[in-house]
Amino acid sequence: MAMSLNDTPRAMRLHIGLFGRRNSGKSSLVNALTGQHVATVSSVPGTTTDPVYKAMEIHGIGPVVFIDTAGFDDSGSLGALRVERTRDAAKETDIALVLFSCMPDERAGVGNEDAFDWLERLHQCSIPVIPVISRIDEGGGADALAEAIETKTGVRPVCVSAVTGAGIESLRTEIARRLPEDYRARSITAEVCASGETVLLVMPQDIQAPKGRLILPQVQTLRELLDRKCLVSCCTTDCLPAMLQSLAKAPDLVITDSQAFRTVHAQLPIGSRLTSFSVLFAAYKGDAPFFAESARKIAALPRDAHILIAEACTHKPLRDDIGRVKLPRLLKKKLGEGIAVTVTAGHDFPEDLAPYDLVIHCGACMFNRAYVMSRVAACRRAHVPMTNYGMAIAALLGILDDVVIPGVD
Amino acid sequence: MAMSLNDTPRAMRLHIGLFGRRNSGKSSLVNALTGQHVATVSSVPGTTTDPVYKAMEIHGIGPVVFIDTAGFDDSGSLGALRVERTRDAAKETDIALVLFSCMPDERAGVGNEDAFDWLERLHQCSIPVIPVISRIDEGGGADALAEAIETKTGVRPVCVSAVTGAGIESLRTEIARRLPEDYRARSITAEVCASGETVLLVMPQDIQAPKGRLILPQVQTLRELLDRKCLVSCCTTDCLPAMLQSLAKAPDLVITDSQAFRTVHAQLPIGSRLTSFSVLFAAYKGDAPFFAESARKIAALPRDAHILIAEACTHKPLRDDIGRVKLPRLLKKKLGEGIAVTVTAGHDFPEDLAPYDLVIHCGACMFNRAYVMSRVAACRRAHVPMTNYGMAIAALLGILDDVVIPGVD
Repeated sequence: MAMSLNDTPRAMRLHIGLFGRRNSGKSSLVNALTGQHVATVSSVPGTTTDPVYKAMEIHGIGPVVFIDTAGFDDSGSLGALRVERTRDAAKETDIALVLFSCMPDERAGVGNEDAFDWLERLHQCSIPVIPVISRIDEGGGADALAEAIETKTGVRPVCVSAVTGAGIESLRTEIARRLPEDYRARSITAEVCASGETVLLVMPQDIQAPKGRLILPQVQTLRELLDRKCLVSCCTTDCLPAMLQSLAKAPDLVITDSQAFRTVHAQLPIGSRLTSFSVLFAAYKGDAPFFAESARKIAALPRDAHILIAEACTHKPLRDDIGRVKLPRLLKKKLGEGIAVTVTAGHDFPEDLAPYDLVIHCGACMFNRAYVMSRVAACRRAHVPMTNYGMAIAALLGILDDVVIPGVD
Repeated sequence: MAMSLNDTPRAMRLHIGLFGRRNSGKSSLVNALTGQHVATVSSVPGTTTDPVYKAMEIHGIGPVVFIDTAGFDDSGSLGALRVERTRDAAKETDIALVLFSCMPDERAGVGNEDAFDWLERLHQCSIPVIPVISRIDEGGGADALAEAIETKTGVRPVCVSAVTGAGIESLRTEIARRLPEDYRARSITAEVCASGETVLLVMPQDIQAPKGRLILPQVQTLRELLDRKCLVSCCTTDCLPAMLQSLAKAPDLVITDSQAFRTVHAQLPIGSRLTSFSVLFAAYKGDAPFFAESARKIAALPRDAHILIAEACTHKPLRDDIGRVKLPRLLKKKLGEGIAVTVTAGHDFPEDLAPYDLVIHCGACMFNRAYVMSRVAACRRAHVPMTNYGMAIAALLGILDDVVIPGVD
């Protein structure tokens, strides 16, 4: 019986990318690190070129997901699609393990060149990389290889054997040491409300999740507020007046679905701060100051602006879909009918951003922070402003200055 | 990227059991019914003897899950394990489709005997059965077979062809007509609170779901309350005094995690009704009057009573696990150290209930109603009282009379 409902959401797990050839010992390394003898706790089998995700727990680190990339194939040749998929996996990677072998298969002409290549690529993407020499129980030459890696890259590799357990504890320590600085402290709500405050969540349910379910940002936010000992109230948009009346005093903070921004803003009690789930996720998963600055530029876009709307989900468009219907409607109301809107979904995001005047991203509840930040970096490189649904809607409604944004005064 | 988080929980879907040989056209029938050309929207691959679950939508019926049982194998022989697993699948089945073929594989000595056998078994379990003659485009003899089935069972079969689409609409209509009477109207909260009322949810998070997640009964209850336009507040147990102070008046209803029953009962404001998630699920998924009557018998159990505690989840026992630690502790405090407690998990439930004086079931958020009711029926047949966690805890704390139970005055 599937228990995935009760697991930590994948997007909240530390993403550890494994870069290495098949038979380089990736699976047994994963088992050794997690202390498990089964191959996977949960895995999403991919095609031969898709990465495989393995959700696990590492003692001292917590919930992680290993991304077993298909970057190097057995023969060492890198097909174009494999490279592309592996590059996509790199975008999601919080920490990369690049596997070197002291017994490269010389007969097949396969050395460690690929590993050196990927180490260099990952460095260039500012992804923390740990070089690993695997299967040291099976052959000699690890010391010489370690020297070579350190000389070439300036990083000392960790030598491991999944069989004897040698080096596994060192590798675990090294992963913990290289965790992104804010990884453990990262919070959705800490910057917008204090522990113990009263928080009202406006959660319209009409077109969101199917029966019996709440969408992930609502669940994650509510759970964190409870953990932070906040007093939480929840209602649908139409019940907001009654909900406010049922409270002894105005809530300290109101978090609304961005689609109800206008209605909630109009009814906001004096003394209550206002934000939205999507605005909170802009900071949790992205670059809130950049998103806010970009949102403020919307009004000044040219009348023939080309705007890219990027959805993480590949769901079938809903009636009144926010990305495909509501946002384009708001944008046209503001900027006129001359603008062009392109919608992409899932991992389908253009390499060349030059044609666009603005990117508006969804809340990205299905993506991890590293992946959203890779898109932020791409937009910054191309000098294209990037914002998200919540901030764009607030800006288009002219209420962005009344919205609390984490990390933005 | 896995989208299961946003799907309707499986236990809330109509469970349609498919009983038939391999190659009897089960897969193409599923595709024809759901109008999809892919084999599955989502499936949990099982072993050769485990049933396969396929979650789908049927137009006019809603979210369903097809249970593709492994009851009949290619050669028609019914291994003991296959029969057992198929019998388990039958327990989860809301509506059964039994597939007959007008072209039985005579060479392999396989006729429709198995189909007749299962039709009879399912009838005996009071499960609505629709006999289906499949693949009528491939061979003649459907009319004669239909006559034979009707004569033998009193039920007119539906003749279908997934290829031509013949009969598919009739089958869809027949499924809709045979839906369990209360299937669409079934509600978790309708009997304990009115639309628009104020409801306070006490949701301790310390040992429940991992980071970023809420357990399913909390999500389902909150979602339904929002759909029913209730004004909902949520807090952890320790924040209850502050939460009550933050409300303008006492909530109409308090729903607590059963593990906090004692604390919440002690603080219950005058005018507030009290219940628990588990008590609500006793009615939603089980037989609340029987559970309440059984809970009231706990105090009178013999000092050497043998009590069966049945968990739906097969998770690793938690620290202070309710089924394995807390409930046995409460039971021993009440009945003395002479009692024996047996704990089962998942589908592992004894055939012979005679040795037990009481069965205490978990909230069963991972099981569907049909499956829990099959256990209720087994307990009733064996004259063994059966209750659930929430009611047992309330009875052991002596507060059951202060708890609102759906369907019980």
